[in-house]
Amino acid sequence: MRVPLDGLPERVTIYEVGPRDGLQNEDTIVPVADKAEFVVRLADAGLRTIETTSFVHPKWIPQLADAAELLDVLPRDPDLRYPVLVPNERGLDRALANGCTEIAIFGSATETFARRNLNRTIDESLEMFAPVVERALAKGLWVRAYVSMVCGDPWEGDVPIDQVVSVSTRLMDMGCSQLSLGDTIGVGTPGQVTALIEAHAAAGIGADRLAVHFHDTYGQALSNTLAALRAGVTTVDASAGGIGGCPYAESATGNLATEDLVWMLHGLGIDTGVDLAKLVATSRWMAGRLGRPSPSRVVQALSPKE
Amino acid sequence: MRVPLDGLPERVTIYEVGPRDGLQNEDTIVPVADKAEFVVRLADAGLRTIETTSFVHPKWIPQLADAAELLDVLPRDPDLRYPVLVPNERGLDRALANGCTEIAIFGSATETFARRNLNRTIDESLEMFAPVVERALAKGLWVRAYVSMVCGDPWEGDVPIDQVVSVSTRLMDMGCSQLSLGDTIGVGTPGQVTALIEAHAAAGIGADRLAVHFHDTYGQALSNTLAALRAGVTTVDASAGGIGGCPYAESATGNLATEDLVWMLHGLGIDTGVDLAKLVATSRWMAGRLGRPSPSRVVQALSPKE
Repeated sequence: MRVPLDGLPERVTIYEVGPRDGLQNEDTIVPVADKAEFVVRLADAGLRTIETTSFVHPKWIPQLADAAELLDVLPRDPDLRYPVLVPNERGLDRALANGCTEIAIFGSATETFARRNLNRTIDESLEMFAPVVERALAKGLWVRAYVSMVCGDPWEGDVPIDQVVSVSTRLMDMGCSQLSLGDTIGVGTPGQVTALIEAHAAAGIGADRLAVHFHDTYGQALSNTLAALRAGVTTVDASAGGIGGCPYAESATGNLATEDLVWMLHGLGIDTGVDLAKLVATSRWMAGRLGRPSPSRVVQALSPKE
Repeated sequence: MRVPLDGLPERVTIYEVGPRDGLQNEDTIVPVADKAEFVVRLADAGLRTIETTSFVHPKWIPQLADAAELLDVLPRDPDLRYPVLVPNERGLDRALANGCTEIAIFGSATETFARRNLNRTIDESLEMFAPVVERALAKGLWVRAYVSMVCGDPWEGDVPIDQVVSVSTRLMDMGCSQLSLGDTIGVGTPGQVTALIEAHAAAGIGADRLAVHFHDTYGQALSNTLAALRAGVTTVDASAGGIGGCPYAESATGNLATEDLVWMLHGLGIDTGVDLAKLVATSRWMAGRLGRPSPSRVVQALSPKE
């Protein structure tokens, strides 16, 4: 039954991260042909923004070592956006060489995670990103900035909101188009999410330039999404079938499953453009490739019983 | 981090259903000594209202055949409430004989589920409940009424809100103290939940007399709870460790896990009286008794990695 709720948007853009954030954090290395089929099927299910891969060094993420090969075989369509993650200028060079028009950079709200994930201080990581963003913008690329650990950090505990806003502001001041707030370890709750979004607005980063990126480690991803929608956010990151996690963060489990998000949004009468049945079929197929059941509750509920 | 959100209550009463709704729907029959230990540990973790068992005929629910024996060994404390489910007058007789002071009856918002679960039409089931409630009230008992299938029914599909309100009104007109709205198959979303609560208020059943009972089949239980809190509800049903389901409803999986609920409420600065660490330890112990991992995300996240 579709029943709207006051104060929510009419339409939400789902930023699909399964092929990148999902597959990057799975033990199984999926062949490039299956990755391409995954992206094509996600697009056929109505997803229009699909983060496809990462130009990080294959030594760090062997799961995505085939980035160039994947981009080479993916069908291009003016209605489809394929952002790719680039960690540094070398990554940007590779993204440009492969015809990418959208990139994402990945910052941290905490010093400990910056050191562990980027091997740099926050300041050093921002220095590394500055020429990436500058060159990308000069080439006319769209640039998203991720900020991770925005609700808590496994080593530092609570992360002060003004510390997040400080990193966000420095990234957006470089000229990034969109900022994705990532609760990488899934500890946040709806009041904290609302306060984060309001603090960004107060610092000049309105909800129209924000996305939210929740992990379901503590089961909070969807209620946090509801709070974010109410605070004006209209772009939500999700991973088809709930695949992925974060190998560098303790106790981080999968991303919010796209299907669970779509179930809530469609129930609220919010348009996503997604065909849920096609999406579930795609996630069931990918779960077979990964050799384990999908962690998405909706995928489980809509799959035939054994 | 505890960050409140405007429009939510300061305190929420958790109505713990694990020993009844949880264990009733597990394949394993738990020995009475373990059930007693379960209830005692839940109380020690701070839960004050614990639905302990059901006086339904053992032929239908062998898992709870030891109801009288369990109540006989449970420690009594004026601060602890132990409601028990009673299906009919025979069940009420047994509850009274065992010193119960709180009972619950279990109605259905749909004809199909009434037939399948109660072997009666809705009208016939209400006729069966009327003398139960009348006699219970005459004895000074507190009476809760459940209404199941309030958001959808596996056989009938969407359930009109006025159909739910009609059954609710007839139950509350009997003199019941509290009405628990049950999304038995977990299909509801936050707009529908809000509309249901508002429709009950318009019919004279205010949010102060309502509880909500969500299943996490489609991952919606916690965002629906957030919507219910915003609509004024302050009593939330949950099952420690997320155990249980509903054997008579297709594709129904576990109840909202008490731990996942507590994580959100405490994050919102809402008082529950629950010690989360003790609760998680209790659910891990019960998961061992049931021979499978707890489906609660919080229990999984806070358990030592294998």
